[in-house]
Amino acid sequence: MIPRYSRPEMADIWTPEARFRIWFEIEAHAVEAMADLGIVPKEAAAKIWELGRNAAFDVARIDAIEREVKHDVIAFLTHLAEIVGPDARFVHQGMTSSDVLDTCFAVQLARASDLLIADIDRVLSVLERRAFEHKLTPTVGRSHGIHAEPTTFGIKLAIAYAEFQRARARMVAARAEIATCAISGAVGTFAHIDPKVEAYVAEKMGLTVEPVSTQVIPRDRHAMFFATLGVIASSVERLATEIRHLQRTEVLEAEEYFSEAQKGSSAMPHKRNPVLTENLTGLARMVRAYALPAMENVALWHERDISHSSVERMIGPDATVTLDFALARLAGVVDKLVVHADNMQRNMDKLGGLIHSQRVLLALTQKGASREESYRLVQRNAMRVWRGEGDFRTFLLEDPEVRRFLSEDDINEKFDLGYHMKHVDTIFARVFGRT
Amino acid sequence: MIPRYSRPEMADIWTPEARFRIWFEIEAHAVEAMADLGIVPKEAAAKIWELGRNAAFDVARIDAIEREVKHDVIAFLTHLAEIVGPDARFVHQGMTSSDVLDTCFAVQLARASDLLIADIDRVLSVLERRAFEHKLTPTVGRSHGIHAEPTTFGIKLAIAYAEFQRARARMVAARAEIATCAISGAVGTFAHIDPKVEAYVAEKMGLTVEPVSTQVIPRDRHAMFFATLGVIASSVERLATEIRHLQRTEVLEAEEYFSEAQKGSSAMPHKRNPVLTENLTGLARMVRAYALPAMENVALWHERDISHSSVERMIGPDATVTLDFALARLAGVVDKLVVHADNMQRNMDKLGGLIHSQRVLLALTQKGASREESYRLVQRNAMRVWRGEGDFRTFLLEDPEVRRFLSEDDINEKFDLGYHMKHVDTIFARVFGRT
Amino acid sequence: MIPRYSRPEMADIWTPEARFRIWFEIEAHAVEAMADLGIVPKEAAAKIWELGRNAAFDVARIDAIEREVKHDVIAFLTHLAEIVGPDARFVHQGMTSSDVLDTCFAVQLARASDLLIADIDRVLSVLERRAFEHKLTPTVGRSHGIHAEPTTFGIKLAIAYAEFQRARARMVAARAEIATCAISGAVGTFAHIDPKVEAYVAEKMGLTVEPVSTQVIPRDRHAMFFATLGVIASSVERLATEIRHLQRTEVLEAEEYFSEAQKGSSAMPHKRNPVLTENLTGLARMVRAYALPAMENVALWHERDISHSSVERMIGPDATVTLDFALARLAGVVDKLVVHADNMQRNMDKLGGLIHSQRVLLALTQKGASREESYRLVQRNAMRVWRGEGDFRTFLLEDPEVRRFLSEDDINEKFDLGYHMKHVDTIFARVFGRT
Amino acid sequence: MIPRYSRPEMADIWTPEARFRIWFEIEAHAVEAMADLGIVPKEAAAKIWELGRNAAFDVARIDAIEREVKHDVIAFLTHLAEIVGPDARFVHQGMTSSDVLDTCFAVQLARASDLLIADIDRVLSVLERRAFEHKLTPTVGRSHGIHAEPTTFGIKLAIAYAEFQRARARMVAARAEIATCAISGAVGTFAHIDPKVEAYVAEKMGLTVEPVSTQVIPRDRHAMFFATLGVIASSVERLATEIRHLQRTEVLEAEEYFSEAQKGSSAMPHKRNPVLTENLTGLARMVRAYALPAMENVALWHERDISHSSVERMIGPDATVTLDFALARLAGVVDKLVVHADNMQRNMDKLGGLIHSQRVLLALTQKGASREESYRLVQRNAMRVWRGEGDFRTFLLEDPEVRRFLSEDDINEKFDLGYHMKHVDTIFARVFGRT
Repeated sequence: MIPRYSRPEMADIWTPEARFRIWFEIEAHAVEAMADLGIVPKEAAAKIWELGRNAAFDVARIDAIEREVKHDVIAFLTHLAEIVGPDARFVHQGMTSSDVLDTCFAVQLARASDLLIADIDRVLSVLERRAFEHKLTPTVGRSHGIHAEPTTFGIKLAIAYAEFQRARARMVAARAEIATCAISGAVGTFAHIDPKVEAYVAEKMGLTVEPVSTQVIPRDRHAMFFATLGVIASSVERLATEIRHLQRTEVLEAEEYFSEAQKGSSAMPHKRNPVLTENLTGLARMVRAYALPAMENVALWHERDISHSSVERMIGPDATVTLDFALARLAGVVDKLVVHADNMQRNMDKLGGLIHSQRVLLALTQKGASREESYRLVQRNAMRVWRGEGDFRTFLLEDPEVRRFLSEDDINEKFDLGYHMKHVDTIFARVFGRT
Repeated sequence: MIPRYSRPEMADIWTPEARFRIWFEIEAHAVEAMADLGIVPKEAAAKIWELGRNAAFDVARIDAIEREVKHDVIAFLTHLAEIVGPDARFVHQGMTSSDVLDTCFAVQLARASDLLIADIDRVLSVLERRAFEHKLTPTVGRSHGIHAEPTTFGIKLAIAYAEFQRARARMVAARAEIATCAISGAVGTFAHIDPKVEAYVAEKMGLTVEPVSTQVIPRDRHAMFFATLGVIASSVERLATEIRHLQRTEVLEAEEYFSEAQKGSSAMPHKRNPVLTENLTGLARMVRAYALPAMENVALWHERDISHSSVERMIGPDATVTLDFALARLAGVVDKLVVHADNMQRNMDKLGGLIHSQRVLLALTQKGASREESYRLVQRNAMRVWRGEGDFRTFLLEDPEVRRFLSEDDINEKFDLGYHMKHVDTIFARVFGRT
Repeated sequence: MIPRYSRPEMADIWTPEARFRIWFEIEAHAVEAMADLGIVPKEAAAKIWELGRNAAFDVARIDAIEREVKHDVIAFLTHLAEIVGPDARFVHQGMTSSDVLDTCFAVQLARASDLLIADIDRVLSVLERRAFEHKLTPTVGRSHGIHAEPTTFGIKLAIAYAEFQRARARMVAARAEIATCAISGAVGTFAHIDPKVEAYVAEKMGLTVEPVSTQVIPRDRHAMFFATLGVIASSVERLATEIRHLQRTEVLEAEEYFSEAQKGSSAMPHKRNPVLTENLTGLARMVRAYALPAMENVALWHERDISHSSVERMIGPDATVTLDFALARLAGVVDKLVVHADNMQRNMDKLGGLIHSQRVLLALTQKGASREESYRLVQRNAMRVWRGEGDFRTFLLEDPEVRRFLSEDDINEKFDLGYHMKHVDTIFARVFGRT
Repeated sequence: MIPRYSRPEMADIWTPEARFRIWFEIEAHAVEAMADLGIVPKEAAAKIWELGRNAAFDVARIDAIEREVKHDVIAFLTHLAEIVGPDARFVHQGMTSSDVLDTCFAVQLARASDLLIADIDRVLSVLERRAFEHKLTPTVGRSHGIHAEPTTFGIKLAIAYAEFQRARARMVAARAEIATCAISGAVGTFAHIDPKVEAYVAEKMGLTVEPVSTQVIPRDRHAMFFATLGVIASSVERLATEIRHLQRTEVLEAEEYFSEAQKGSSAMPHKRNPVLTENLTGLARMVRAYALPAMENVALWHERDISHSSVERMIGPDATVTLDFALARLAGVVDKLVVHADNMQRNMDKLGGLIHSQRVLLALTQKGASREESYRLVQRNAMRVWRGEGDFRTFLLEDPEVRRFLSEDDINEKFDLGYHMKHVDTIFARVFGRT
C-alpha cells in the first residue's frame, strides 16, 4: 500500500486513529454489556462512553507508552485511563487483547468489504452501459491470439460483467467469512467474561458471534478472505489484459482515454500507451501474492501465536487498498474506453473470410462429406489464404471437390456476419436479465 | 499426485478412461439434443449412444492418433468414428473442442468435490465423537506456546469441528463455482449450435448452464475452486500442527496411533514420531501451492489461449487427489488419536498455579486496586514462580500488598479449575447444536 | 509431472529403480569406507558390493515390506538383506535413514541439474544461430505493445540469449547448492559413524561434504534450488510470450512451425495457433509454484521433521521434469521458428514513420528548441498520424514551427533505418563475444 | 513496509528524496559523458552538476507536475529545468525514462543489498559468539519433535551459522544480479546515445554495464534477487521457529530476553512469550510472498510493458525493509538469548536414557545379533519406558536376551554422554575454521 495506489476512503480505515476509535467502541460496548449484567457500575459505563466518545486519542502518546510496555493494547488502555480516570479499571475486564484486536480487524475488513462491493458495483455499472452500447458492434473473436469467428464487442463486455457479478457474490461471501466478533477471553472459554458481552458487542459493531474462538478468531476465515481478493484481482487482470491487447498498434480496436496534457513517453512523443491497464496487471500480481501468507497464517500454534499479526498489519491495508484502487481504476478505464469500431471491422476482414471456415466445414458435412474429408478440404484452402495467395471465398468457389458438395449460393451464404449475432439477445438476457 | 498419496476413488476420476467416457457422454447427449431439434437424424443419435455406451475406448489408439494430429479431441472423435461408423459425422457438429474439454473438467471437478465433501464429513464425524468424549478433559490452553489458562481437550476439538464446518460450506460453494456446462461454440456465440443443446447436456450431466462463455468456461471459477482447496488444506495443516505439538516428548498429551509392526526410526528404536501429521503439513503446502497457477490462469488472452490447459492437467488431479488423501488421513489420525489425559493434568500443574494469574488480577481490580497496580502485583509474584522459586498461591498468600485486597479464601477460590469449564456447554451448543 | 510433459531421460532419474540403485551405492560405499577404517570386515564389504551391484531390486517386494514396517529405508534394507545375506548386518551401521535419503536426493538433483544445464545449452545454441541469421532483420521494437523504435530480430534473440546465459549460471550455482553429502547420524553429531565415511561416500558419489547437518541436509539449499528453477521457468515464459505475441493474426511476424498433419482447431480448419508457446506459459506457472512449498520446507522443527518429505517426493520430479520438458520444447520452437521478415517490415511501416519521432524530437532540441516546445511540436504532428490523417514526415515538412528549426534535409535524414542499426555489432560483441 | 517493521537506514533508500537524488546523479553523469564525447557543451554539464548537486528537489512540486503530465520522469526533468535553467535541454538527451528508472532501481537495490549483507554479518557474528559459548552445552537433539540423541547447543548454533554463511553468499550473488546499468535508449539499440555514456554512468554509479537491454533491464535479474530474499527469510524463519520451540513452557531451554517494563499479556501477567521470534515467522511469510510477483514480472511484453512498475514500487521497499528489520531483530534475539542449560539437561534425562537406544542397537549387532533381532530387543524395552514403567538401562540389564550379547559394563558404557561430543571439534572446524 503506497499513496500512489491508494484512495483516501479505504486508506482511512487503516489509520491508527480509526483503529483506536474502533478499539474504544469495542471496549465501551463491552463495559456497557457488563453494566447491564450488573458486573460494573452503570455510571462508570456511562462515563466511559461520555469521555471517550469525543476524545481525540493521542497516537503519539500511545506509541510512546507502547515503546515502554511493548504491548499495543495495554498502551491504549493506559492512555484511555488518562482520559476517563479511575473508572478505566472497569474497562477490558476479563477480556484479552485479541478480543479487541480481532474484533477490530473484523470491523475494518467488513468496512473494507463494503467499499470493495461498491467498487465492483461501479465496475458492473459501467460494463453494463458499455456492453449495451456495443451490443451489436461486430468484432473478431480470437483464440490463441488468432482470429477465430465473429462476435460482438458487447459480448466481450457481457463476459466481463458476468465475471464481476461472480466477483461480487464472492466478495459478499468473503465479508461474511470475516465479520465475526470474539470476546471470549484468554483461551476462548469465557472464564472471566459472560458470553452475553460478546453477543452485545457483536450486535453493536454489526458483526455475528464467532461460535468458538481460541484466543483469536480462527485464521481460516482470513485466509478465505484474502484468497477471494486474489481471485477478484485476477479478474481485474483478465479485463486489463484484454484491453492491453486491443490497444496494440497492429490491433487498435480500443484505447484507454488519453487526456490532452498527458505524455506517453519522455522519449517518443507519438506514443499512447495502455499504462493504466498495464498498471492493473501489476497490482493484480500484488493482491494475489497476499493470499499466500494469509493461508500460512492459518496454522497458528495451539490457542494462538502472534505470527499472523505482522502479516495482517501489512496485508490488511495492502490488499484492500490496492484492490480498491485497482477496481476504481478499472471502472474509470472502461467508462472512458475509446472504442474503434472501424478498426474492429478492418481487422475482421483481414483474413479474407477465413473466420467463416467452420461454417463451410459444417455445410460440407451436412451435405454428406465425411468429417475428415471436410476438414481436409477447408484446411487446404485456408492454408492458401494463410500463405497470402488470395481470398478464401474465391478459392472455395474454384475448388471442384468443394463444389461437389456446395453450390455458389451455399458458399456465399456462409459469409454472412449476421449469422453470428443471432444469439446475442439470448446471451444478454442471461447476463443482464434484459436485452 | 503420486501413488503414495493417492486414494483410488479420487484417482479414478482422472484416468484417461474416465475422461473419454465423459467426453462420449457429452457428445452423445449433444447429438441427442440436436436430434430432438431435428438437426440430425434420431436414428443416428440412437446408434451413437448404443455403440458408444458399451464401447471400451482404446486409450493407446487415441494416443497414437493424437501423436499424428496433435489434437486430443480430434483424436478421440476419429477413434469414435472407428466405433460408430459413418454416423460419427453427426457428432460434435457446431461444437468446439473446449465445449467438450471444459464441460468434462466441470464433471470431474464436481465428482472430486463430492468426494472431498464426503471426506470432510468423515473428519467432522470423528471430531464430533472425540470432542464429546473429551468434552470435560482439562488441559492447558497455550498462547505463544506458553501456558495461558485451562480449557478442555473437547473445546480444542470443537474448534477444529467448527473450522471444518466452514471448510464444508466452502467446498459446497466451490463445487457450485465450477459445476457449469458450456456448449457455445468457437467464441461463445452459439453461431453453429442451438443454446438448447447446452441446456440439455447441462441437465444430463448434472451441471448448470454457463451464462456466457468465450471459447472456454471463464477461469475465475477454477481459480476460486483451487484457492478454496488451498484454504481447506491450511485447516488440515492447523489441526496436524496441533497434534504434532501435543506429541512432542516434553508435552506428550496426545499421540498418533502406533501399530505394533511399525518402526519409528531405522536408527533409534525407541521413537514414536508424529509422521502422519508431519506428512499432512507437507501435503498442505502442496495443495496451497496449486492455488497460484490457477489464479494466473484467469487472464487468458481474448476468447481463450491454451496456457491454462497444462496447468489444469496437473493441478486438476494433483490438488484433488492430494487433498482427498490428506483429509482421509486426518480423519484416521483423529479417529485413533491416543489422548493422555494424565499428562494434560501434569503439564497443567507444571507452573505452580500460574495459569490462574488472570483471575487473581481481576479479583484485585474488583477489590479496588488499579489495573496498573494489580498487574504489577501479579507479575512480581509470577516472575518468582518463573524463576523456579516456588508456588504461585503460596507467594500470593504471603504478599502483604496482595493481602490488602484479598483474603486467604479469596485467593484459594481463584485456583478452582471448574471455574474455567462453566461455559463448555455454551460452546458445545453453539458448535454442535447439542451439549 | 505427467507423461505428456515428460522426457524419459529426466523421468528415469526419479523411478524407484533408480532410487534404490543410488541407495545401494551410498550404503555400499559407506560399508567400504567402514571396512577401510577396520570397523567392518573387508570381505563383507566386498561381498555386499558384489551381490548388490548386479542385483535387480524388487520394487514390489520392497513396497510390500514397507506396508508392514511403514518405513521405506528399513524396507529396503530388509530386502537388501534378502539379497546379500547375513553380511547385511554391516550395512547402514551408525547411519540414519536421512543419511541415505538426503544424499540420494542430492545425487538425483545433481543429475537433474546436469540435464537442465544441457537443455539450456541447447536453447543457447539455437538462439545464437537464429540471432546471427536475423542479426540485421529490421523489426519494430515495442513498448506497452505500441510501436516504439526500430530494432532487429537478431537483437530480440540476443536478449533471450543473454537471459539464458544468466539462467545457465544460475543453474550451475543451484546445482552446487544441493550437491552435498551428509552421513552424520541421527542428529548430525557423527556419534556412531566416523566423518571419514561421509567424506568417502561424498567423493564416490560426486558430491561435496555437507559441513554441518542436523538429521538432514538443511533445506535452505533446496529452497534456493527450486526458487532458481522458478526463475528460469519465468525466462522460458518471457520468450514464449514474445513468440505468442509475434504470431497474433494482426502481427504475424513469426510463427511456430506447423506440420502438415497437424490440426489447429477441431472446429476452425484455418487456424495455426501458437500452442507450444502457450503450453510453455502454463508449464512456467507450475515450475514457479513449486518454489513456494520448497521455501516453506526450510523451517523444519529442531533437528528435522518429515514435513518436507511429501513435498519433495512431488516437486523433486515435478519441477525438474517439467522444466526439462519446457526447455527442450523451447529449443525446438526457436529452432524451427518461421520468421516473416516481410511482415516485420510491413508492420514497421504501419505508423507512417511515427517510430522516428524521437529522432525528430532530439533534432529540434539540438537546433535550439526547448525540450518542452520540441515535445509539443512532435506530439501534435504525431497525434494527427494517430488519428489517421496522414503521414508523419509530410506533416513535419509542412509544419512552419518545425521548419523554423529543421530543413527538409534535416527532416528526411531522420527517417533512415540504418541509424538504428549502428550498434548491433556492439551488442552482439557484448553478448556473443563475436559479431 | 510499515514503520513498525522498518529501520531508518533502509527506509531512507526508498524515500522520494533519495530517488530524485539518484536520478539527478544518473542524468548529470550522462550529460558529463556526453560532454566528454563532444555532444553537449562542457560548460553546460558543469553547470548542471553545480546547480543540481546542492539543490533540494521539491517533492511536492514534482508530484504536482506529475499529476498534470502523468509521467514521473518528465515531471522530474521539468522541475530540474526550473533549477538549472536553459541548459536543462542537454539533460536526458537520447535517453528514455527507463534508463533513469532502472539504473536508479539498481542503485537502490545494490545499496539495500549492502545493508542486508551487513545485517547477515551481524547475525553471523552473534551466532559465532554464542556457538562457542555453548559449544559443549549438552542438549537433546530432536527429530519429529521427539527426543533423538544428544547434541550440543553450540552445534545447533553452528548449524544456523552455516546456514547464514550460505545466506550471505546468496545475498552477494543477488546483489551482482541486479547491480547493472542500462542507458541504451527506447528499445536498447543505442540509437540516440553512445554506449560510452552507459559505460561512464555505470562506473560512476558503481554498477556493471547491462550487456543487452530492451527498453528496460531484464526482469529475470530482479526475480532472482527477490527469490533470494525469500530464501533468506525462510532461514530467518527456521531459526526463529527453533527458538519458539525452545521457549515453550514444557521445554524452556531458551528464552527471548524479557525486559523489566515489558508486559507479556494484558490479561495474564505471568506470561513471557516468544513474541519477537513469532513476529519473525510472520515477516518471513511476507518476504517470501514478494518473490512471486517478481517472478511474474519477468515476462514483460516485447521490449517492455510497465506492469512490473507498480509491483516494484511496492516490493522494492517492502521486501528489503522487512528483511532488514527481520535480520536485525534476529541478531538481537540471538545476542541476548537466555539459555537454560539446566533445563536442557533435565529434559534430556526425561526419557530414562532412551536417547541412547541406538548405541545399544549398534552394540547388539556388533556382538552378533541380527539387525532385525537387535531392533526388536531394543524396541521392546524402549516401549516399556515409553509406557512409564521405568528406566531404560535397568530394563536392558534385566533382559536375558539382551544380556546374551551384552555384559553389564557393555550396557553401562552406552549411557556416556561424552560419546556424542567427540566430533564437536570436527564440526566447529568445518564451520568456523577454528575450534
